[in-house]
Amino acid sequence: MKIVALAGGVGGAKLVDGLAGVLPPADLSVIVNTGDDFEHLGLMICPDLDTVTYTLAGLANPDTGWGRRDESWAFLDALRALGGPTWFRLGDRDLALHIERTRRLRAGEPLSAVTRTLCAALGVEIQVLPMTDHPVRTRVLSDIGELGFQEYFVERSSEPAVRGFRFQGADEAAPAPGVLEVLRAADRIIFCPSNPWVSLDPILAIPGIRAAIGEKPCIGVSPIVGGKAIRGPAAKMFGELGIEPSSLAVAEHFRDVLTALVIDTRDEPLAEPIARLGIQPLVAQTLMHDRSDRLALAGELLEFAAALERAI
Amino acid sequence: MKIVALAGGVGGAKLVDGLAGVLPPADLSVIVNTGDDFEHLGLMICPDLDTVTYTLAGLANPDTGWGRRDESWAFLDALRALGGPTWFRLGDRDLALHIERTRRLRAGEPLSAVTRTLCAALGVEIQVLPMTDHPVRTRVLSDIGELGFQEYFVERSSEPAVRGFRFQGADEAAPAPGVLEVLRAADRIIFCPSNPWVSLDPILAIPGIRAAIGEKPCIGVSPIVGGKAIRGPAAKMFGELGIEPSSLAVAEHFRDVLTALVIDTRDEPLAEPIARLGIQPLVAQTLMHDRSDRLALAGELLEFAAALERAI
Repeated sequence: MKIVALAGGVGGAKLVDGLAGVLPPADLSVIVNTGDDFEHLGLMICPDLDTVTYTLAGLANPDTGWGRRDESWAFLDALRALGGPTWFRLGDRDLALHIERTRRLRAGEPLSAVTRTLCAALGVEIQVLPMTDHPVRTRVLSDIGELGFQEYFVERSSEPAVRGFRFQGADEAAPAPGVLEVLRAADRIIFCPSNPWVSLDPILAIPGIRAAIGEKPCIGVSPIVGGKAIRGPAAKMFGELGIEPSSLAVAEHFRDVLTALVIDTRDEPLAEPIARLGIQPLVAQTLMHDRSDRLALAGELLEFAAALERAI
Repeated sequence: MKIVALAGGVGGAKLVDGLAGVLPPADLSVIVNTGDDFEHLGLMICPDLDTVTYTLAGLANPDTGWGRRDESWAFLDALRALGGPTWFRLGDRDLALHIERTRRLRAGEPLSAVTRTLCAALGVEIQVLPMTDHPVRTRVLSDIGELGFQEYFVERSSEPAVRGFRFQGADEAAPAPGVLEVLRAADRIIFCPSNPWVSLDPILAIPGIRAAIGEKPCIGVSPIVGGKAIRGPAAKMFGELGIEPSSLAVAEHFRDVLTALVIDTRDEPLAEPIARLGIQPLVAQTLMHDRSDRLALAGELLEFAAALERAI
């Protein structure tokens, strides 16, 4: 069974890592949001691609959710002493990835090719695809005006109230080479427990992707558990947009495209309202505290995926 | 007595550091070669400016002659693991300088302004001026073809035999803001013990600098001692260009512009032939092993400089 996962940062990376632990590498591809990408200190930084790559390479920092484990900060300390901008924290080792990526991009390689090279160097076996090679930038429409995503998320700690989102450049973007191919070959698409607004919606905004996905059984994993986001500002965003945050809200958000939605055991009462939307509810323990949780959820998800085949 | 020093890398930085130890900051400026500058990993790297700045800030690595002391290499190790180019060694702390400089240059600040900001941040009190804000690139004409300076010097360890040099962009360059001003206000110009071919000649190649210098008493310090370069490929370059390397060769090289040349005690026999060129020979202990040597040479140099006033 060929699986394609759509992923943003931490939650997506964890589930993809679990799937990579239970599937042969050739049967799993991940399409990663690049709407969070931004240029900082002259470097092209791709936070979601990095989190997925580091997680799959076993290099991710489990405490922060970004950057590398066993990291050092000599560069950042020296930059601070020079009066440079340090609001976006770049560790010494992490910096190598940004510098090498930027060097290759400037030399004319597309992001998808650079990602392939970097993943290979780090021993990542599954296919990691940026959603597009074109620059697409998530813009946050907020109560203090329009902000770049990292301005909103890191510099302002997700504090401004959101009014909406804009995926600058998405209309002119095309799926990266490989994206439509893996979607067409896929037996199941998995929407990882990533932020619907700023991790998954940008992927769906790339012309051609939603149509390719729409032809396949799609199984989501809710990033909202017990009315709260597992991580990050997803629940806050739902609330500020006038929607009560819940697994049901996630189901409604993706109602046009999801076949099934995995919700956490504590959200079991929402199974029925989700079913009424025409989305098959599946109940599982979705929190991934450690690697065994990731593998367990991935295993259950694949069972659901196989069962879904019979149901369709 | 207002002093302007012309400097390249290590030898120049050491003497300028000595001069900074015996002169009030307002009386000393240094004009630094930027012909060695190059773009690497997307960063603008200015090796001579960096060596001068780090030396004056007390941060220079005394063992290597480049980079910072107490440096770590996590970035470079990670870059190597990613398959990136590591022939030019950039330490974690050093990297901050290149990244912050590049960021400011890309934001539109001229190199002279960036240098002023970085020096201020590092507590460097004397005026450090790049020779020009324009890109000037030393090209080495060698037996294996034309090479960029760092290709020749670092990547190929100065091994190719040189046939000549070209300072690409020099004709169209202008002295950086402040350069002509400090030269006009100077009482003495000091040619630091830097490589004549690739450290000092590029400075003299900037239109307007040679003329401004020619009006002033100029005192050189020979970078060749006992027929050998104190450091680097200067002696090798003289030899490959068919000139026996010596303090006398240095005097001949700068014959049009030098008033006096400080030679090492072991070169005392060359004093007479140097005098015959119309250049006043001055003999001193010129090797600078430690900071007291730098201060001693600087002190003697200033005495020479004062005596020169009376002689002219």
